[in-house]
Amino acid sequence: MEDLVKTPAPVVDAKNSAHDGSQDDVLAACLAMEHVADVVELLNEHDLEDQAHVLVHLPDERAIEVLDQPGLDDPAGLIEALPAERALTLMAGMSADRVAEVFRYMNDPPRGDLLRRLDPETRAALDRVLAYPENTAGSLMTTEFVSVPASWTVEQTLDHIRRVERTRETIYAIYVLDPKTRSLVKAVALRRLITADPKALVTTAARYDKPVTVSPLADREDVARLISKYDLLAVPVVDESRHVIGIVTVDDVIDAIVAENTEDVQKFGGMEALDEPYDQIGFFQMIKKRAGWLCVLFLSEMLTASAMQYFETELEKAIVLTLFIPLIMSSGGNSGSQATSLLIRALALREVKLGDWWRVAMREFPTGMVLGAILGVVGVIRIVIWQKAGLYDYGEHWILIAATIGAALTAIVTFGSLAGSMLPFILKRVGFDPASASAPFVATLVDVTGLIIYFSVALIILRGTLL
Amino acid sequence: MEDLVKTPAPVVDAKNSAHDGSQDDVLAACLAMEHVADVVELLNEHDLEDQAHVLVHLPDERAIEVLDQPGLDDPAGLIEALPAERALTLMAGMSADRVAEVFRYMNDPPRGDLLRRLDPETRAALDRVLAYPENTAGSLMTTEFVSVPASWTVEQTLDHIRRVERTRETIYAIYVLDPKTRSLVKAVALRRLITADPKALVTTAARYDKPVTVSPLADREDVARLISKYDLLAVPVVDESRHVIGIVTVDDVIDAIVAENTEDVQKFGGMEALDEPYDQIGFFQMIKKRAGWLCVLFLSEMLTASAMQYFETELEKAIVLTLFIPLIMSSGGNSGSQATSLLIRALALREVKLGDWWRVAMREFPTGMVLGAILGVVGVIRIVIWQKAGLYDYGEHWILIAATIGAALTAIVTFGSLAGSMLPFILKRVGFDPASASAPFVATLVDVTGLIIYFSVALIILRGTLL
Repeated sequence: MEDLVKTPAPVVDAKNSAHDGSQDDVLAACLAMEHVADVVELLNEHDLEDQAHVLVHLPDERAIEVLDQPGLDDPAGLIEALPAERALTLMAGMSADRVAEVFRYMNDPPRGDLLRRLDPETRAALDRVLAYPENTAGSLMTTEFVSVPASWTVEQTLDHIRRVERTRETIYAIYVLDPKTRSLVKAVALRRLITADPKALVTTAARYDKPVTVSPLADREDVARLISKYDLLAVPVVDESRHVIGIVTVDDVIDAIVAENTEDVQKFGGMEALDEPYDQIGFFQMIKKRAGWLCVLFLSEMLTASAMQYFETELEKAIVLTLFIPLIMSSGGNSGSQATSLLIRALALREVKLGDWWRVAMREFPTGMVLGAILGVVGVIRIVIWQKAGLYDYGEHWILIAATIGAALTAIVTFGSLAGSMLPFILKRVGFDPASASAPFVATLVDVTGLIIYFSVALIILRGTLL
Repeated sequence: MEDLVKTPAPVVDAKNSAHDGSQDDVLAACLAMEHVADVVELLNEHDLEDQAHVLVHLPDERAIEVLDQPGLDDPAGLIEALPAERALTLMAGMSADRVAEVFRYMNDPPRGDLLRRLDPETRAALDRVLAYPENTAGSLMTTEFVSVPASWTVEQTLDHIRRVERTRETIYAIYVLDPKTRSLVKAVALRRLITADPKALVTTAARYDKPVTVSPLADREDVARLISKYDLLAVPVVDESRHVIGIVTVDDVIDAIVAENTEDVQKFGGMEALDEPYDQIGFFQMIKKRAGWLCVLFLSEMLTASAMQYFETELEKAIVLTLFIPLIMSSGGNSGSQATSLLIRALALREVKLGDWWRVAMREFPTGMVLGAILGVVGVIRIVIWQKAGLYDYGEHWILIAATIGAALTAIVTFGSLAGSMLPFILKRVGFDPASASAPFVATLVDVTGLIIYFSVALIILRGTLL
């Protein structure tokens, strides 16, 4: 190892002599006992060429560790920057789920070229993972898990584990298979294994009758829910014949949950999920992700202009009504966005099911009424004060105007809460992710209806006086 | 165990004979090999009395398992419903972090009474955990971890682990302490221990020089970030003198992340975090959580009414301008909410730091300009089409009006993106959680300014013609 540090590849050397110092620091850090996650942070600060340069000089085991880290910004790029031979050796050592992820983001030609030259075993594992759509259990799973026949004893199993430990992503969950059919019989935790009687059958160390499993097509959210519900360190992915084709480990799930939440928040903010860190996505990529929804919302919001045109005669007769348009519309949008955020999470956490929509509606209706009434009262008080204090003159019919505002607010906030709470259900019903309901979308939805409600209420209360 | 099932306490029996059947089902399930998480789901469907009735008849170990499950809806209530004696035995067996959580939600008198009667050991562990504010590492940690002196061999350590396994929340991370100072020297993974040479010192099995640690006051978000960054199964909580006072395990962290996200989404929706499942929170509780922000937003939004009053003369001269108010205002709000959601996550994931605010502003400014220009063009086209197609007559100066709308949209969307992206920074700067920036709040912020921008642009473009 030592001499590797002393003799960096001269070519690269000449090219980025400027970086030399920092490169050697990184190299040193990598070769020292530094935690790999910190090493990766260091590497991320350098360009791919330097990263490749460092990686070439690392012992295989360490280099593989680095490439396996989810924290690495651009593993695909890094692999492409490596000499093909080196890349192949390293990929053979990486966990299958990671190799698959890398290949997803790699460009041709290197991609196809490397795929062809992978050793058969890695290739087979890779194909199994690549076969499944992104964000499914199948795409998250690793094929490096420990499985033993049910006929083995605890001792045999422990010996086996000791032999294969280095090549497995986790050894804390051991999967016991039927010796004939190779289908999953039990899952055993290592902690129970080491405390069990060495001579006993491995199956006796199993805590539960039926091990928890997922199908390869299960969504990452569902995998996360299982793992957290049953406090698992890994969940086996099984096919129809209950053959274990891989496992999803808890650390992959944490990354998945975090990614899922970023997506949800961004969608709720009214844009396409970014898929890339904010500080790394390109300018036009960013525009693309945001302009789409912004235009959709803009076009739908145009209906407000049409609505106002429709009520123009009323507007001309009572300009005073226009003063409250932004106030009233935003209140509807706000109550809607509250209800939507509530139901998005309630559905995601399975606190409420699709079938509960009626119960929820029956709950949001009175809630909205009360909230609306509260705002209505505040609104009326505001007008009374302004009028009495002479801050503004709402004209001779100011009492009726106050009444209009109060009534309209109650109606609109009720509608907002109702619409906002139902939207996630509707999306789920038609097969979308409820989390794709966004605050701006709800606001737009409520704005148009809000205007119509507002003017209708005004027509009822002010007819014969102002209108 | 069998006879327990056959002879349920007659008192309870008489009282809810209706439940009997189901109770026995639950009992049976509990006593069978059913996974405890499923048992808990079953119990949640019954009232506390029935739950207590079942728990009384369970063997201690099983009952403790049930109470330790985060999925249990109301552990505090259940403990209160149990006979004090029974409650004490069970709490002695529960993990310290769980007992602490239970006490947080328990009411007096049972609370104080039980606290007094707890066995000293449990009490001591409990005090340590209760001493820390909610959602900190200290409040999440459990005190049941494995620690051994650095002078021990691998074999000694493994024997020790076998003895204490049942009483520890996890044994997959072993903490090696200095024999004298008892301060943390290394963290060893069980997987490395069982593959290591039994005669070697336990320290030789450590993977890294310095173990990753957190302070008891670290926020649950930071603990989660550490655990996921370093792919840990548990992180030790250490005091100033590096004594391990507890550990936070990965399953607690997953629950913490999920809770954190629910909070974030609800806050972003413009309300107080609910703290309770949607289907369990009371009606007035719900009103309280939502009315507060709704009123704040409403009061700030009132400024729009004042702004409109200020521009009333212009409004009277050019009613046509009012037609586009909702459209223009909402566009500002939408672009703002996009930017806010982006930065909330970018800050939470440490993709950008507080110091990057200027870099972000310099990026959001052009982004907003482009997005605004896009909407501006769409808006102008809309007016041209309506005018030419005779769908609506914007008057002789329709071209100037179109120009006003286009210019105003560009300016407002730019402002929206800028304001929306800076808000999370400002909140973080003044010590708030950036995630408390909400879409409605940004919208309100932008609405008021948006109106002023709109009318100012109108005054510039339309002066001498319409205004």
